[in-house]
Amino acid sequence: MMACCGGCLCCQCCCNEGETRTPEELTILGETREDEDEILPRKDYESLDYDRCINEPFLEVLEGLDNKKARRYEAIKWILVFAIGVSTGLTGLFVDFFVWLFTQLKFSLVGQSVEECSENGCLALSLLELLALNMVFVFISSVLVLIEPVAAGSGIPEIKSYLNGVKIPGIVRLRTFICKVTGVLFAVAGGLFVGKEGPMIHSGAIVGAGLPQFQSITFKKIRFHFPYFRSDRDKRDFVSAGAAAGVAAAFGAPIGGTLFSLEEGSSFWNQALTWKVLFCSMSATFTLNFFRSGINFNKWGSFQLPGLLNFGEFKCVDGDKTCHLWTAVDLAFFVLMGVAGGLLGALFNCINKRLAKYRMRNVHPKARFIRLLESLLVCMVTTLVIFVASVTLGECRDLVSTNNNTSTQGSVNEEVNSTIRRFFCYNNTYNDMATLFFNPQEVAIHQLFHQNATFSPVTLLLFFVLYFFLSCWTYGVSVPSGLFVPSLLCGASLGRLVANVLKINFHMQIYSGTFALIGAAAFLGGVVRMTISLTVILIESTNEITYGLPIMITLMVAKWTGDFFNKGIYDIHIHLKGVPLLEWETEVEMDKLTASDIMEPNLTYVYPHTRIQSLVSILRTTVYHAFPVVTENRDNEKEFMKGNILISNNIRFKVQHDMYCSSIELQRFDHKMVHVPYPNLYPDQSPSEEWTLEERFRPLTFHGLILRSQLVNLLIRGVCYAENQSSASQPRLSHSEMTEDYPRFPDIHDLDLALLNPRMIVDVTPYMNPCPYTVSPNTCVSQVFNLFRTMGLRHLPVVNAVGEIVGIITRHNLTHEFLVAKLRQHYITI
Amino acid sequence: MMACCGGCLCCQCCCNEGETRTPEELTILGETREDEDEILPRKDYESLDYDRCINEPFLEVLEGLDNKKARRYEAIKWILVFAIGVSTGLTGLFVDFFVWLFTQLKFSLVGQSVEECSENGCLALSLLELLALNMVFVFISSVLVLIEPVAAGSGIPEIKSYLNGVKIPGIVRLRTFICKVTGVLFAVAGGLFVGKEGPMIHSGAIVGAGLPQFQSITFKKIRFHFPYFRSDRDKRDFVSAGAAAGVAAAFGAPIGGTLFSLEEGSSFWNQALTWKVLFCSMSATFTLNFFRSGINFNKWGSFQLPGLLNFGEFKCVDGDKTCHLWTAVDLAFFVLMGVAGGLLGALFNCINKRLAKYRMRNVHPKARFIRLLESLLVCMVTTLVIFVASVTLGECRDLVSTNNNTSTQGSVNEEVNSTIRRFFCYNNTYNDMATLFFNPQEVAIHQLFHQNATFSPVTLLLFFVLYFFLSCWTYGVSVPSGLFVPSLLCGASLGRLVANVLKINFHMQIYSGTFALIGAAAFLGGVVRMTISLTVILIESTNEITYGLPIMITLMVAKWTGDFFNKGIYDIHIHLKGVPLLEWETEVEMDKLTASDIMEPNLTYVYPHTRIQSLVSILRTTVYHAFPVVTENRDNEKEFMKGNILISNNIRFKVQHDMYCSSIELQRFDHKMVHVPYPNLYPDQSPSEEWTLEERFRPLTFHGLILRSQLVNLLIRGVCYAENQSSASQPRLSHSEMTEDYPRFPDIHDLDLALLNPRMIVDVTPYMNPCPYTVSPNTCVSQVFNLFRTMGLRHLPVVNAVGEIVGIITRHNLTHEFLVAKLRQHYITI
Repeated sequence: MMACCGGCLCCQCCCNEGETRTPEELTILGETREDEDEILPRKDYESLDYDRCINEPFLEVLEGLDNKKARRYEAIKWILVFAIGVSTGLTGLFVDFFVWLFTQLKFSLVGQSVEECSENGCLALSLLELLALNMVFVFISSVLVLIEPVAAGSGIPEIKSYLNGVKIPGIVRLRTFICKVTGVLFAVAGGLFVGKEGPMIHSGAIVGAGLPQFQSITFKKIRFHFPYFRSDRDKRDFVSAGAAAGVAAAFGAPIGGTLFSLEEGSSFWNQALTWKVLFCSMSATFTLNFFRSGINFNKWGSFQLPGLLNFGEFKCVDGDKTCHLWTAVDLAFFVLMGVAGGLLGALFNCINKRLAKYRMRNVHPKARFIRLLESLLVCMVTTLVIFVASVTLGECRDLVSTNNNTSTQGSVNEEVNSTIRRFFCYNNTYNDMATLFFNPQEVAIHQLFHQNATFSPVTLLLFFVLYFFLSCWTYGVSVPSGLFVPSLLCGASLGRLVANVLKINFHMQIYSGTFALIGAAAFLGGVVRMTISLTVILIESTNEITYGLPIMITLMVAKWTGDFFNKGIYDIHIHLKGVPLLEWETEVEMDKLTASDIMEPNLTYVYPHTRIQSLVSILRTTVYHAFPVVTENRDNEKEFMKGNILISNNIRFKVQHDMYCSSIELQRFDHKMVHVPYPNLYPDQSPSEEWTLEERFRPLTFHGLILRSQLVNLLIRGVCYAENQSSASQPRLSHSEMTEDYPRFPDIHDLDLALLNPRMIVDVTPYMNPCPYTVSPNTCVSQVFNLFRTMGLRHLPVVNAVGEIVGIITRHNLTHEFLVAKLRQHYITI
Repeated sequence: MMACCGGCLCCQCCCNEGETRTPEELTILGETREDEDEILPRKDYESLDYDRCINEPFLEVLEGLDNKKARRYEAIKWILVFAIGVSTGLTGLFVDFFVWLFTQLKFSLVGQSVEECSENGCLALSLLELLALNMVFVFISSVLVLIEPVAAGSGIPEIKSYLNGVKIPGIVRLRTFICKVTGVLFAVAGGLFVGKEGPMIHSGAIVGAGLPQFQSITFKKIRFHFPYFRSDRDKRDFVSAGAAAGVAAAFGAPIGGTLFSLEEGSSFWNQALTWKVLFCSMSATFTLNFFRSGINFNKWGSFQLPGLLNFGEFKCVDGDKTCHLWTAVDLAFFVLMGVAGGLLGALFNCINKRLAKYRMRNVHPKARFIRLLESLLVCMVTTLVIFVASVTLGECRDLVSTNNNTSTQGSVNEEVNSTIRRFFCYNNTYNDMATLFFNPQEVAIHQLFHQNATFSPVTLLLFFVLYFFLSCWTYGVSVPSGLFVPSLLCGASLGRLVANVLKINFHMQIYSGTFALIGAAAFLGGVVRMTISLTVILIESTNEITYGLPIMITLMVAKWTGDFFNKGIYDIHIHLKGVPLLEWETEVEMDKLTASDIMEPNLTYVYPHTRIQSLVSILRTTVYHAFPVVTENRDNEKEFMKGNILISNNIRFKVQHDMYCSSIELQRFDHKMVHVPYPNLYPDQSPSEEWTLEERFRPLTFHGLILRSQLVNLLIRGVCYAENQSSASQPRLSHSEMTEDYPRFPDIHDLDLALLNPRMIVDVTPYMNPCPYTVSPNTCVSQVFNLFRTMGLRHLPVVNAVGEIVGIITRHNLTHEFLVAKLRQHYITI
């Protein structure tokens, strides 16, 4: 088992190194080869299967599943979903508490030593203090990521891929969870320009995937008997809920979380699931609030605090009748800011993409400690920048004078004012640069949103530039690192700058906080390009429904502007990893292709009744994950039935199957028995890869699909019958026996062949999926794509008008790159 | 055309009268016949088709549709969606303004006359004044509904049905819009216990359906050349957006609106569509806010006001540190209130269902003015109750004393206090019953949520009982009538009662407003049983994210409790109308059935090439909306090809079609040409209903589906070729010609047969849908249901393993009632 873990780890490393492509792939996608820059979807990612297979062993479950039991099953789901929410909330609490503790410690220690400093030398001492603390924190974080490399980055690309239906090894493992949670804690505490929101979402997803399984691969002792939810379908549902809970905990945005998991993951709208996801999100939010209210304010039993990241209350002074949070005129500026945000976001993504490619080529192939060194370098530079900028570049701004007229605003401003930094500024002034740099990022955001005292335009600009480049560099080093908070902070400084200029140079009556908020939204939108969920998350974080329109318009404009240049940062990183992600829909042009143009025509089949030796050889010589179960279409079947038990069983199955469809078929079958045989009819061998072209394309009636894992399982558990027995004597496996090993089924190469009698026959029909969704060969691509994506399929057989299988479509046949290549071929042949 | 309208109207009347079922339906659903109470889904509702048909005339569009044009198309959609939002917002503004005007007029007039009254006689005068005004208003409203009966009720059941895929005649017509909007205005102004929210949603949906068509059937002069979006698919998308905008305008809840249209309508999650729907909702909300801010407060350019219905700001007094909106302890009470709300909601639904059935049997079949009289009766009783209760049953409660400590709360309470009614109460006291009854309902809700002065428990209880029964009676009379506000008010009074008891009898430290809100949520949830969208709507209406958890838990408990007894009120009314609504998913038990158990096996086919006389006879003798295009499976086809151009064309098509699938097929085809013919092969007649059983079940290879409307269109436009010509000489229709008459295609009976040459041949292959989704006969019901509902299909052919069509599944084969009947049959045959 340890070997397996090692294997996963190693495989993951390969994934990260990317760019290694098999010759086969290059052939298939050869058309785009000249474009050296292009990274193609890799074929070694497995897909998840959202479709249900309903057949005999499952029917047994079904028989038991009357409506009463279904309701109990449903109740278990609700309880699990609640547990996921609570656990995610607690995880958030854990991260938040320790980050708060470490940061508080650090800033109070260093801040005090700076404030008390009078001679020159002591400043260097403070710097060293800060540097030492940060380096230690980042070192721990980076080491954790080296233990589990999947824990690096924000985790959103991975979760997005998972929800899209791609299995990325190790992504929902307990070890990843531990490394991610602890890692992000130290990364944030280490003063890196990273957020904890992305990792929170990833953690939530892991909780969702792992908790309902009641077992772990990392800790093998954790293993209860809980034979439910052992399928990709259920797991993906729970991962949706967990990811939503992560968002809910991170932003205090339960609705936003729900919409996030819908936007990133859902292919179809399922009311019951969405309702559970919302409940899960609510549980997470309020678990977090409950404990934070209790721990931070000793108000146990109250739920007043919003999520980890909150934007405070935007509010006009009570008496001020001319104050508006925003007016129709401001909307025009918001649109412009959206454009700017989109442009800057595109720049950010472009730089980060180049950096990531550089890392993939030059850093990742080298020894691991190089990555560690890079993290430490980033940490050192960041710390130096923070320190030097705070001490030398800040301006002393007046605090009281601008604050006069807002004395009634009370609590909000009290809180904001308590976090300012004075750094060598006296007489009721404060150091604006230090206030931004020398505070946790959330506090800096609060300052930009709610500090009535102005920041100097130069400070804001400098802050933006430094932050922009540093956070761009940071995203991608091997620490767990979110992007939300750094982007928000970047954007907020820009927005505040705009507000400053409008207020001072143009004497406009505006509310600075709104502009800072819109700036934050614009930049974040330009970087991540999320739409619905981000709108709702931001609305919920401000707890102010009236910001709906400006936020939405800004995000729309930012997305449109950014999309003009490149993709969102998460999509870029998904692309760099070569994940075969399916988009929302295909382009209109693709409808010039049909299913037969894009399908994989070279299939390996099994017959309903197959000898073990054939099965083993098929399984050992191919890498396919599913095999169509077929019978051949001959007219002289009756003759063959006399010869051989295997063949006659297969033919009998076919006849029964046809009868099932329409009772008249049997007559037709009898009619037909007069003909000349095909040359190579029903050999005592299962079909193999060595066939000639003619053999390969001979007519094969399609009866169902069987998965590799199911076949291996049947072999291991000795499900077969001897030649002289009837197929009814074959032992039967129950549903729970079939799914016991989920999610890691044994490999065919682990099988001890000595235990198997190669002449025995396996009847696969009770275990295959007898009626998967199919398409006809001339179905246009958009329809195929819709069916595949909406139903969350893994294999989609292409069956012609007379019921013969002519190909199979998988995720890899539907990726954008593959379709583009095929379309190019199509144009060439025309 | 007028006849058509009349027909629609008449048909609609029939729908409302319900309970008339054809013998055929009763046979099919015969099993449940003994259950006299049961209302079965009617077969005369047509379905909408969400699936796209892509074939030659569409390909032409496709060729033109490169990505650039697709982007323009997208831009038009955005503009239309914005226009829908703005129009819906303006509609809301219109209704709100006039309701406000009329109500203000009425209450100030009557209220003043009551307050000034000292002798006994003058009270009667006031009552008469009120009565006269109300009766006039309600009379107008009721007359409008008589003009367009679909405008009655809240409209949510109809919109839900529409979004589910059922075409209800007249539901999205301009005339309905006018009657609904004007009607609800007068109904609310007339003092009936109805809300304007449901009708707002319906109005929004009509705007969505109608605006992008740029033409109207009611006003035939409105007709621009705008040949886009002429399909059920696009229309349904726009209706989703419109309905969402309606919710957004009504509640100031753009996110809730989006989720409403997802919850009620969507079968699959489409990111691009959802993003547009959200934008539409935002536009509606902020259009409304913009104009209301301008008109009501003369603050043009600001957007501070929330939706038509808003709950005011829930807020603790600033200084009060012990005040909490809610605590963990309160949650227990909320759960209990949820149970109570569920029970009362179930009672409400039960009474209303009986009332509705009574009306269907005894009121609707009679002359129309009876309905008018009923409305007037309800109005009279309501007015009397309001007046008598206000004058005689109210208690004088102290206003100032309890208000002392909240002096800082300012604006909210000022507003609340300005709407109290003193009715014979002096010395700083007020009449609590009159305050609730003698105000618009929204104001009464505000009073219950924010009035710090207590209401007497007796008053609250009396108010609840009176309101409960009166609003239950009112919902269903023939005026446009929403249910949200009455339910909220009912529930709020109950919640306030609980708060009163807890505060005074148990001396608990609670916030009354929260309890009122939770009570409102509980009762509303118990009545309508909505989940996600209602949660979000209520959260947005309170503009307080911290209410998320209690609202959600209350709604969950209320729904579960209520579902124990009956369905939600909207589902009940949908059921009463016999709409074949598809649920979210099938019950687990249904998986004992397969597609072949539930399909319709008696089909009427057409051949690829068919004579006009056959087509006409098929169209005139059947009522099916779609016909499978088939060829027969014979082995001696070559012989027949010699005889007759029609037959040889059909056989040639078949061969080509097979070739298309795999190039080897042709050889096989040649192989086969040796056999004995079937008795009745390829007659010069198209298949008809008069066939013998054997003929009916003969093997028919399935090639595609063609709709009745398409066939009629082809006939009308003379798309055919003469026997001695090649099929290539047949004129071609473009996509816009095919869809020009959408949504009302001409009927076959309107066709002048004299213009047609019955011997001409029609080649339907360029116009049929060549590759609809299909299922195999042994696919289990849950999979069939999923495919059908998720893809929004109208016809789902069942095709067996050798490519022959054996049946068709439509919406009617998947309704709960049909499945239950089939399952009962299944058990009997076992």
